[in-house]
Amino acid sequence: MSVPPSDSLDQLRVRLAQFASARDWDQFHTPKNLAMALAGEAGELLEHFQWLTPEQSGSLSPDKHRQVAHELADILIYLIRLADKLEVDLVLTAWDKIALNEARYPAERVRGDARRAEEYG
Amino acid sequence: MSVPPSDSLDQLRVRLAQFASARDWDQFHTPKNLAMALAGEAGELLEHFQWLTPEQSGSLSPDKHRQVAHELADILIYLIRLADKLEVDLVLTAWDKIALNEARYPAERVRGDARRAEEYG
Amino acid sequence: MSVPPSDSLDQLRVRLAQFASARDWDQFHTPKNLAMALAGEAGELLEHFQWLTPEQSGSLSPDKHRQVAHELADILIYLIRLADKLEVDLVLTAWDKIALNEARYPAERVRGDARRAEEYG
Amino acid sequence: MSVPPSDSLDQLRVRLAQFASARDWDQFHTPKNLAMALAGEAGELLEHFQWLTPEQSGSLSPDKHRQVAHELADILIYLIRLADKLEVDLVLTAWDKIALNEARYPAERVRGDARRAEEYG
Repeated sequence: MSVPPSDSLDQLRVRLAQFASARDWDQFHTPKNLAMALAGEAGELLEHFQWLTPEQSGSLSPDKHRQVAHELADILIYLIRLADKLEVDLVLTAWDKIALNEARYPAERVRGDARRAEEYG
Repeated sequence: MSVPPSDSLDQLRVRLAQFASARDWDQFHTPKNLAMALAGEAGELLEHFQWLTPEQSGSLSPDKHRQVAHELADILIYLIRLADKLEVDLVLTAWDKIALNEARYPAERVRGDARRAEEYG
Repeated sequence: MSVPPSDSLDQLRVRLAQFASARDWDQFHTPKNLAMALAGEAGELLEHFQWLTPEQSGSLSPDKHRQVAHELADILIYLIRLADKLEVDLVLTAWDKIALNEARYPAERVRGDARRAEEYG
Repeated sequence: MSVPPSDSLDQLRVRLAQFASARDWDQFHTPKNLAMALAGEAGELLEHFQWLTPEQSGSLSPDKHRQVAHELADILIYLIRLADKLEVDLVLTAWDKIALNEARYPAERVRGDARRAEEYG
């Protein structure tokens, strides 16, 4: 396209598509494989937190914080790639989901209560 | 802040913080718990693809496509919340990671080859 | 106990409890943390398979096969620890689940069809 | 075989192979797909624990306990299927891994310390 994308996610999407194309990696980037890669990164994220107390998880050392930030970036990267391959607009769909969650979890009803929606009577 | 955020991720970040605050859910949104929630959503994503061939995973039915899009939105939502709690700039860190990946996987060396970086001699 | 356990899972359960106790690790082995550790290992397992074709996943190199076997062992170890902490009899519950699956997926109805149970009309 | 298996895991392995064969599901049970299914179940396990305090995770309600037990059974079932397909002896490999962990985490050195092995200097 002649006009560069103006939004951060879209800029990343374009750059990541170029990255894969330059390496002939689109053949590996099926939605199935990208879902696995994303979940693998989510597993790495867990490993950073698994033995920490809730409190410790909120006050990471600078080194650990940097490692965790990179895991988050890896997850975002695969999420953008997967949405691109499926032609999903991540931002629009997130706003849709927030509207659904507003209806499922009315603030006055679930205040201070984290039970899952299906557990409400 | 008086000036509304202009970027899509930042707009979502602000909205999600309001959503949690209105429900008194920040007490549950420790980085440890948010990492678990994100990984749980990644698990749901996997379930949509687990029995599909690579080809089938690229041509989902409209109903399945909509469900998968919502899983991607859930992952984005928890990712934004977790980055917010850890004060990580997702977009900047993703660009950092892409630069690292450029160095780790030179295009001319890894073309058409999906082995992981640590497996290169 | 004076009589050693005769079944393989029970022998592992006893040994793993000793291993944790000798390191004063029971304080970390809450069900929540063990669930995270198990899911983290499942994420490592995924990473071995994410870029492979279905066919390649069935003919691993000896080195890769050994690595995957160790991931499976890690998952079994955390599964046994978690079941021990929750006082779940893994084997009995697996037989229960198989009986449930027999009822949910009658052989004559689902032959050659991998759709999930909830997708059947 | 003419002699039925005497160990609990082996009995389950034989039963699960029959279950898949009767449904013509071996075509779906590639190692790649089974790894995804296992990780999907690990994600469901996480969802039960994600908003609980460490203490709450050790005192589940009877209903929640039953649900979690079934998740553990699902994980065991896919673990056994995957090991069967890869011809991995889960029990022998778990004992190998315990011996490795004994060497990596000497009790006198790591007592009360849950940092991961690679983080030790």
